[in-house]
Amino acid sequence: MTIKRGLFVGRFQPPHLGHCEAITKLLKEMDEVVIVIGSSQFSHELSNPFTTGERMTMVKKVLDEMGVDPRRCHIVPVPDVETHSIWVSLVRTYAPSFDVVYSNEPLTRRLFEEAGLTVRNVPFHQRELYSATEVRRRMLAGERWRDLVMKSVADYVESIDGVGRLRALTRTDKAS
Amino acid sequence: MTIKRGLFVGRFQPPHLGHCEAITKLLKEMDEVVIVIGSSQFSHELSNPFTTGERMTMVKKVLDEMGVDPRRCHIVPVPDVETHSIWVSLVRTYAPSFDVVYSNEPLTRRLFEEAGLTVRNVPFHQRELYSATEVRRRMLAGERWRDLVMKSVADYVESIDGVGRLRALTRTDKAS
Amino acid sequence: MTIKRGLFVGRFQPPHLGHCEAITKLLKEMDEVVIVIGSSQFSHELSNPFTTGERMTMVKKVLDEMGVDPRRCHIVPVPDVETHSIWVSLVRTYAPSFDVVYSNEPLTRRLFEEAGLTVRNVPFHQRELYSATEVRRRMLAGERWRDLVMKSVADYVESIDGVGRLRALTRTDKAS
Amino acid sequence: MTIKRGLFVGRFQPPHLGHCEAITKLLKEMDEVVIVIGSSQFSHELSNPFTTGERMTMVKKVLDEMGVDPRRCHIVPVPDVETHSIWVSLVRTYAPSFDVVYSNEPLTRRLFEEAGLTVRNVPFHQRELYSATEVRRRMLAGERWRDLVMKSVADYVESIDGVGRLRALTRTDKAS
Amino acid sequence: MTIKRGLFVGRFQPPHLGHCEAITKLLKEMDEVVIVIGSSQFSHELSNPFTTGERMTMVKKVLDEMGVDPRRCHIVPVPDVETHSIWVSLVRTYAPSFDVVYSNEPLTRRLFEEAGLTVRNVPFHQRELYSATEVRRRMLAGERWRDLVMKSVADYVESIDGVGRLRALTRTDKAS
Amino acid sequence: MTIKRGLFVGRFQPPHLGHCEAITKLLKEMDEVVIVIGSSQFSHELSNPFTTGERMTMVKKVLDEMGVDPRRCHIVPVPDVETHSIWVSLVRTYAPSFDVVYSNEPLTRRLFEEAGLTVRNVPFHQRELYSATEVRRRMLAGERWRDLVMKSVADYVESIDGVGRLRALTRTDKAS
Repeated sequence: MTIKRGLFVGRFQPPHLGHCEAITKLLKEMDEVVIVIGSSQFSHELSNPFTTGERMTMVKKVLDEMGVDPRRCHIVPVPDVETHSIWVSLVRTYAPSFDVVYSNEPLTRRLFEEAGLTVRNVPFHQRELYSATEVRRRMLAGERWRDLVMKSVADYVESIDGVGRLRALTRTDKAS
Repeated sequence: MTIKRGLFVGRFQPPHLGHCEAITKLLKEMDEVVIVIGSSQFSHELSNPFTTGERMTMVKKVLDEMGVDPRRCHIVPVPDVETHSIWVSLVRTYAPSFDVVYSNEPLTRRLFEEAGLTVRNVPFHQRELYSATEVRRRMLAGERWRDLVMKSVADYVESIDGVGRLRALTRTDKAS
Repeated sequence: MTIKRGLFVGRFQPPHLGHCEAITKLLKEMDEVVIVIGSSQFSHELSNPFTTGERMTMVKKVLDEMGVDPRRCHIVPVPDVETHSIWVSLVRTYAPSFDVVYSNEPLTRRLFEEAGLTVRNVPFHQRELYSATEVRRRMLAGERWRDLVMKSVADYVESIDGVGRLRALTRTDKAS
Repeated sequence: MTIKRGLFVGRFQPPHLGHCEAITKLLKEMDEVVIVIGSSQFSHELSNPFTTGERMTMVKKVLDEMGVDPRRCHIVPVPDVETHSIWVSLVRTYAPSFDVVYSNEPLTRRLFEEAGLTVRNVPFHQRELYSATEVRRRMLAGERWRDLVMKSVADYVESIDGVGRLRALTRTDKAS
Repeated sequence: MTIKRGLFVGRFQPPHLGHCEAITKLLKEMDEVVIVIGSSQFSHELSNPFTTGERMTMVKKVLDEMGVDPRRCHIVPVPDVETHSIWVSLVRTYAPSFDVVYSNEPLTRRLFEEAGLTVRNVPFHQRELYSATEVRRRMLAGERWRDLVMKSVADYVESIDGVGRLRALTRTDKAS
Repeated sequence: MTIKRGLFVGRFQPPHLGHCEAITKLLKEMDEVVIVIGSSQFSHELSNPFTTGERMTMVKKVLDEMGVDPRRCHIVPVPDVETHSIWVSLVRTYAPSFDVVYSNEPLTRRLFEEAGLTVRNVPFHQRELYSATEVRRRMLAGERWRDLVMKSVADYVESIDGVGRLRALTRTDKAS
């Protein structure tokens, strides 16, 4: 009996309730999930404030708070590469083998499809609300961002002064 | 008797009738032409949809359809580098030796001029019309893009579903 | 109450019984262990035959077979960099935060010590026997390599024809 | 008696009177200054027109024209890296050791602070006026840019036709 | 009717009579051949003395001297990458599509086989004699190297003082 | 009246009395010297134990102890690149402009000569004795290495425990 693995790609800047919903869904359809922390090389940017180590820590906390069996989950950082056409090959090198890709991102879907893989949609509810972009926007605006993430993530972000870092990033003007 | 070679730089995303006109002109002035496929590392981007292998295939088809003697043409992929000032040196490493550079692109011209090379203009007719940007715009808008490229290029783009790929790229939103 | 994490660096080409002993020891002294899969970019080399994805799969199987609580373990691939002096910084970016480094490797120890971190020895028994070098040597010689690794690792290596790959690598002669 | 060194980061595209004021201030507070030429890999871009060699030449001329003792100054090119969180480590590898960082740039400040270093502000007068952005804007507009830089810098920029290069860069349209 | 393409990988340092024999054979079995100039980034090394541009020039001369129809040949430089497992993906990005791989090199064969491609042997006669290693050895020893390559290659190597360069490389001692 | 600059390339692992002799000679023939710290990206290796920052510090101390006017000297770190043929271009980007290259290293000489530059020999006395290889050998063997370097270099190496680092590097066995 072989294990069926689904691949789920996100940047997790930070992980939010939409990610949790997606992971729950995948674990109903598949035996195991490979969670790819994409764009892993970036941090300290407005749209990528957290390091891979911080994102891995948060994803682990999320799985724990959700009560998911950690043996069913693989967390794999994968960097972006400037040659998009080799990115699928990089994922295959860095990740345990997988059978199905779950993604709504058109380029990600296209790249896996061109490589001959099966790609499925991830049905998110309220996609505008549960998005990392909205979480970061609220962090900067001083609005209620904690409602969009799990408690363990919110606590962790505060323990590393994540909002302070994000605010410092808005004031940067590297091109002067 | 030494052979005179002209260097012609393009991205060929995809090759269009303007490129054909330029190559024809070069082959009147020079014995051989070195066709540099620039920005070679990029693919699956809105302004760089095709891989180097696909672009090389299309350029070969163009030369064939034009009836050009292939022994007079060298096709050389060259990646962009973040340090512009070493790019000329990279071209010289990757390409057969050349005598004159043909380019209208101001940065390309400047870099070759600072390196002490002779740079000439390429007289294009209807530059706004015969441009890869216009070809890609028409592809996305569902307009008559086939008129701007050679028949063999149009057929090839369709055989690899190039328009489908370009449309997938417009829907991508990597920064969420 | 804060969690104490120990960092353990290996290449896991493949994971062997010495690694298991080390992980067991760390988990007695620390709350959690960060297992760094070092030299993560390499594969299909005589001393690095397995990809990161394969190594991550094997380390997970080892933890499972040992009955270790997976919530106490973090698996983090980290590539080598040509500038050794920035490698510690890379580990810190890619891994969850950690308090103590466990390593017997003199360069690894030196780099972490120069960065001001606490470094401890890992007491291995029979270091010559339980080493990945010895496992690979036996694989190539047709000797009893399965005795040096956990059963789940041995089964996995066979399922991907790891010994066949290693033998192909011995016959390579790239410099001709 | 140990020497106290202050680190000062700039791109020096080109060095202007604001930089001079900052260096003067640092040399009052510290024994020596380490001048980091940041984003060292870039040149021939609109906001990075000059190579590192050219910028190093100009900074040396500035120190000479200011009458600063060159033994108190270290000039160190440091490239940008896509992983911001390792950049501080890169500076430490490339530069002589330093005690205090002087910077007004929010991201630079944040990165050094997260690494546990002391960061101080650089009080600039008329920051809008004495900026490299304003110098380059005036160069392109044909306005009085020489007033914003030291005479030796102005003469050097003219000797290498820096304004001509900058103008070539405005006309470039690489994405066609 | 689709065209059948065979892929042939070499480093061509320099192209020799064994390469010619292999290309002749491929063109009997396939419609077209994709000639990969491997390890394309290297030059000025004892085992990689020639640049990619020089090697491309020589391969073109060989095809011409052999009287091969150049429309049936594609010449594609591909660099080595440190992650062997993504190299096949790189070849696919840089080369026109291909159906069969011809190679005797065990690692090259293994990588293509693991990617699911058909790999065939290239029957060379006198492999020890017709090898680039032997050509370079003779060049350095002052022996009859011209016998092992085509006349056009021998003439070209002399025109760029290739033997002089190779000799300079033997005297280098970079590690002092 | 234009300034004449000579380029001098070394790795300075560490700077020794042979380097001092060479710099003295150059400053007799040229107005200024550009001292390239080559292989700048390496550190913590047996043949490259010191970081660029440490090497830059030592070279500055040497110039100071020799009583050389620092305005006549430029210190420029330049990394090795895997494509040797573009290295000269990299030096030209990173260094102030120069007129003559001084080097005894055959590959360095060849690369500059192929780029059309004037290259001169550096007459060293007792080249076997005054070499960084010999200094490092003595450090490891516990022999009198201080005799081969300037006092300020010897004191600096001791202040950073350079010999201790070198010894740690000999014990490393990364390939296990």
